[in-house]
Amino acid sequence: MPNQVYDTIIIGAGPAALSAAVFTARANLKTLVLGNPRKSMLCSAVSLGNYLCTDKMSGQEWLDNALLQIKKYKANFNQDEVVNITKKDSLFTVKSASNETFESKTIIICAGVSIKQSGIKNQNRLIGKGIHTCVACDGYNYKNKRVAIIGNTNYAAEEAIELTSFTKDITIITNGKEPEISPKLKEVLRKSNAKYDKGRVMEFAGENKLEKIITNDGKELKFEGVFMALGTITALAFADKLALDTLENPSNNEKYLVIDKEGRTSLEGCYAAGACVGGNTQIAKSVGEGCNAAISVIKFVKGLDNYNDLT
Amino acid sequence: MPNQVYDTIIIGAGPAALSAAVFTARANLKTLVLGNPRKSMLCSAVSLGNYLCTDKMSGQEWLDNALLQIKKYKANFNQDEVVNITKKDSLFTVKSASNETFESKTIIICAGVSIKQSGIKNQNRLIGKGIHTCVACDGYNYKNKRVAIIGNTNYAAEEAIELTSFTKDITIITNGKEPEISPKLKEVLRKSNAKYDKGRVMEFAGENKLEKIITNDGKELKFEGVFMALGTITALAFADKLALDTLENPSNNEKYLVIDKEGRTSLEGCYAAGACVGGNTQIAKSVGEGCNAAISVIKFVKGLDNYNDLT
Repeated sequence: MPNQVYDTIIIGAGPAALSAAVFTARANLKTLVLGNPRKSMLCSAVSLGNYLCTDKMSGQEWLDNALLQIKKYKANFNQDEVVNITKKDSLFTVKSASNETFESKTIIICAGVSIKQSGIKNQNRLIGKGIHTCVACDGYNYKNKRVAIIGNTNYAAEEAIELTSFTKDITIITNGKEPEISPKLKEVLRKSNAKYDKGRVMEFAGENKLEKIITNDGKELKFEGVFMALGTITALAFADKLALDTLENPSNNEKYLVIDKEGRTSLEGCYAAGACVGGNTQIAKSVGEGCNAAISVIKFVKGLDNYNDLT
Repeated sequence: MPNQVYDTIIIGAGPAALSAAVFTARANLKTLVLGNPRKSMLCSAVSLGNYLCTDKMSGQEWLDNALLQIKKYKANFNQDEVVNITKKDSLFTVKSASNETFESKTIIICAGVSIKQSGIKNQNRLIGKGIHTCVACDGYNYKNKRVAIIGNTNYAAEEAIELTSFTKDITIITNGKEPEISPKLKEVLRKSNAKYDKGRVMEFAGENKLEKIITNDGKELKFEGVFMALGTITALAFADKLALDTLENPSNNEKYLVIDKEGRTSLEGCYAAGACVGGNTQIAKSVGEGCNAAISVIKFVKGLDNYNDLT
């Protein structure tokens, strides 16, 4: 059981997340930043010429400096990967790949760019017809059925574990890769008797609903349901799990979380900032949105009409 | 006549303006920043603890550093005060207190916080009924009539000059202050025979429309129309002149420019960022919005669907 309730958990550790953290921590909110700064897109930037007042810094230096600045204000950091999130009775529970849970009054999703489509044949045609993206949303319909999770990471493991509430016939198809799952989650999975298949998925087959998965070694695997869980958890997966409003950018078919001017998503207590809400991917924009979301969180947690961090 | 057309003129020189400038200048847009950084709210900040990666800087140092950073990319700077703006045939003309004009394909309004109401008795009751806030909008209705401009600055002078197209009976009521008007505008005004009155305005009088102005020395001055032009030109005055959409914040009755997520106002080619669009007054937020507006300007001027400044 979690032994403390945070005021806010910030998911991600790029510019939007760190900007949000500096504001909430300065306002004495119990703040947890859950994410690995080394995974930010920014790490590859050689010299920041467009973020005002730090143009000699590399992306890596920027992140290191930001962390030093925030640590003065006693924010908590945990580089563990987030694998699940739920909300109950106005409290969010965030679960990490180490099988730890953290509770919080609010969350700020700064999960970065959305991940591209899998490109597996017929996925789009059969989505919702046996192919799904969220166990919390659609797992219930697969009671005692034969189901596959597609993915090889902690996120796939967590989706499989969540599915054990409904069925015991679970196969994790690692899509041609070795499983990359934390010892803690592996242990939970072992008890559930989930099977592994290391085939790479070439095609989903079925007329009006999914009937089978065809892998690169020519195997045809029959399943009644499939849950996609490739890569690490994305902002879109959060949107599914929490039923957040999203919007599709027609020019690239990518989906984004919908926020208002103050960083609020469609769910009370849930805020978002940075690349996962669309728009350009500049640091300046992400830092500004992190600030906006943080100020909304501070007002929400403290019950204030207005808040300005005047320094 | 202006001898060059800018790609963008940025009005203001605070964090939103300077952030916009660094992006447009790096994209090789002919950029003019019109405003005085010494007038930014930021100047009073002692130590910036919440703008990531520069927490040891004062507000003044931040601005100085930002200017150095931008100057590398050949933006033009002019600290002269803006007194008027018009749009004709997709070209904006911006006029300064030195009576210079500058032409541009786009403008980005970063004019800072809106100025509070004058507090003069009956102004709100008689607004639109003889009391106005924009000569370009309502001056036409005062052909050959007796009109007052209230204000003592370059902005008031410019409104008076604009009014000379309609009437010759103009009094500038300086509201208890000495005129603070540039030599160039003073010279234009002298030729127009505008009169000055140094009374402080206590009250507007009139039943259903303005009839007279009562000043602190007990004088009752009859006018058919009055134009408010206190202080320097504000974002709201731009909104009036360019017919931009505004929104009132019900908690403080202040008006803000309406922009979309990409910094566009309701007028093509006109963008806005920073405190004049509402929301919190943090540097991070202003810098982010300046970036968004600049990227929209770059796309508009270059005819691009997408633009990212990847450094």
